[in-house]
Amino acid sequence: MHTALCDQLGIDVPIFAFTHCRDVVVAVSRAGGFGVLGAVGFTPEQLEIELNWIDEHIGDHPYGVDIVIPNKYEGMDANMSADELKSTLNALVPQEHLDFAKKLLADHGVPTGDLDDNALQLLGWTEATATPQVEIALQHPKVTLIANALGTPPADMIKHIHESGRKVAALCGSPAQARKHAEADVDIIIAQGGEGGGHCGEVGSIVLWPQVVKEVAPRPVLAAGGIGSGYQIAAALAMGAQGAWTGSQWLMVEEAENTPVQQATYAKATSRDTVRSRSFTGKPCRMLRNDWTDAWQTAGNPEPLGMPLQYMVSGMAVAATHKYPDQTIDVAFNPIGQVVGQFTKVEKTSAVIERWVQEYLEATSTLNQINEAASV
Amino acid sequence: MHTALCDQLGIDVPIFAFTHCRDVVVAVSRAGGFGVLGAVGFTPEQLEIELNWIDEHIGDHPYGVDIVIPNKYEGMDANMSADELKSTLNALVPQEHLDFAKKLLADHGVPTGDLDDNALQLLGWTEATATPQVEIALQHPKVTLIANALGTPPADMIKHIHESGRKVAALCGSPAQARKHAEADVDIIIAQGGEGGGHCGEVGSIVLWPQVVKEVAPRPVLAAGGIGSGYQIAAALAMGAQGAWTGSQWLMVEEAENTPVQQATYAKATSRDTVRSRSFTGKPCRMLRNDWTDAWQTAGNPEPLGMPLQYMVSGMAVAATHKYPDQTIDVAFNPIGQVVGQFTKVEKTSAVIERWVQEYLEATSTLNQINEAASV
Repeated sequence: MHTALCDQLGIDVPIFAFTHCRDVVVAVSRAGGFGVLGAVGFTPEQLEIELNWIDEHIGDHPYGVDIVIPNKYEGMDANMSADELKSTLNALVPQEHLDFAKKLLADHGVPTGDLDDNALQLLGWTEATATPQVEIALQHPKVTLIANALGTPPADMIKHIHESGRKVAALCGSPAQARKHAEADVDIIIAQGGEGGGHCGEVGSIVLWPQVVKEVAPRPVLAAGGIGSGYQIAAALAMGAQGAWTGSQWLMVEEAENTPVQQATYAKATSRDTVRSRSFTGKPCRMLRNDWTDAWQTAGNPEPLGMPLQYMVSGMAVAATHKYPDQTIDVAFNPIGQVVGQFTKVEKTSAVIERWVQEYLEATSTLNQINEAASV
Repeated sequence: MHTALCDQLGIDVPIFAFTHCRDVVVAVSRAGGFGVLGAVGFTPEQLEIELNWIDEHIGDHPYGVDIVIPNKYEGMDANMSADELKSTLNALVPQEHLDFAKKLLADHGVPTGDLDDNALQLLGWTEATATPQVEIALQHPKVTLIANALGTPPADMIKHIHESGRKVAALCGSPAQARKHAEADVDIIIAQGGEGGGHCGEVGSIVLWPQVVKEVAPRPVLAAGGIGSGYQIAAALAMGAQGAWTGSQWLMVEEAENTPVQQATYAKATSRDTVRSRSFTGKPCRMLRNDWTDAWQTAGNPEPLGMPLQYMVSGMAVAATHKYPDQTIDVAFNPIGQVVGQFTKVEKTSAVIERWVQEYLEATSTLNQINEAASV
């Protein structure tokens, strides 16, 4: 599955692994793929620590950093510092929403008294907060790709990244978004179907991928949304993608920080157990359905706010998830794609990469056998 | 793309074309594929006329008939004749729903005065009404496949079809449904992803197809939902499907009975312009979004009834669509999949099949080139 893009990035296989866990970034890149660290949950100081750790352990392999700058969000035109923006946005969060969230957690036995300081989080979900993350990433020579998970990055940011010799990637859910990325000179377009975990649109991968490939050709496209096997990678490459952008699978590897209780929950889930919900981030985001997601779409309850305000409400649930991972499954933020339905066990990262390569070869062999039988 | 299933059915390419139009059935089967006539809209007498016409024009090629028996519907356990059932169900349709539907049509300038007789339709959506359709189909030797669009067919119906020497197919949207089909000895499992037009689930094709293939192996699986090119067929076959079950594309061929105005609407639509709506059939069914689908999900308006009751309300809109196809686009029933976004023009049926074969070969060639480059 070694495509032209692999040569450009100096990797063996075009398997891009999005993860919040530095150990997984290292394991994927060392196995010949391309690890990408999701930066949104880190302060600039924490991010610097993570990237230094990766640099020490990844050898000569490259890796990427993923940031989140949505095209539209509350306060986006305010031209404020991160601190000013945070204070302004705090005032926009209704007390009713905070009370509802606290009650929901309390009803599930989750202590919230010590979480209040975490409640009003902004994270890196704006240009003001993502820019320092990019600056830090560009100080690390092995970071060769900056990806934006939502929307086209600002023009000056793209220019800055290009001038530093790195490539820019961006996710999209429609050919029209892909066109905007291409016109802004985004190097790699990631077409994410509605099956995907995290923020996604409604158009399925089998329809979206070839449309985006056609729209931006010859610019390379990575297929995202629903990939957890080499069969699915073969399908993506058959439709013209240059590689696979994957996320869910990396929650089910030994190197992930997820607990056995969380991983057992994923192994048990079917593909019907995820839902596109605005209840954590304010934008439709695919995750495991649970009491939290149900509560925020029950008539009569508060409706989710926009981005980034909703996370300033849900942040306390996320903080609780991190603090009490095994006691909060029913109200936790578990972004994961429909591909969760095919997970049965926890594997080593390197074993996943090897399995995917074998499955990919099996799939191409199946097609060759069909063609050979037809020509007899 | 000639798979083992092609030999079993005596066809050249595993392209199954679901259509309500006899001309398309004939054109697909004559071009080497397998045409399947959707019977649900026909009375037994009309169906007999259609099948006779197909027999006269299809040459020695086989074809199929598709019926609809949902696993659950109002009155399913009533053990009544079709007429008794119709009368019983009529009494369950609230006048409020009928009035709302009539007003919606009137507000769009659609005359409904002469459509009242068509308002309370039951169609073939029950075992009582589908059984006579199957009996008629089995009188036609070139009909070699009976497919059920919703759920596992009743055991005695499967037995009856098998004894007549035909194969049985059934659609599913999850591995669990596929397992039920296989246990009932359904010969061909059709895995339909949420991208698909008509009744569909929520799991995307790229995730669903390989799960179903694995669940029922070695029973043959057809991939459905989002196929409108040979690239997408290559993706399906790479993941282990034995062929493609397609529908939307056949609304965009010269042989279809759709009008130029309807086809221009499809050509203009993007993949985001469809919606899963209960507003016509009572079950989630993917169709073009329009004023009708919006109205039935607006808070304060009547909520859609179950199957088959909702169609006894929407039947008048469907009848109006048939009578005034070009004046009713905004309230018409236009079941079509997300693949509509890749349609740009009307083609001859034989040209579609030829194009798909070429695109399929192009896709497999792409994979071979990747493999060859990797082994250098």
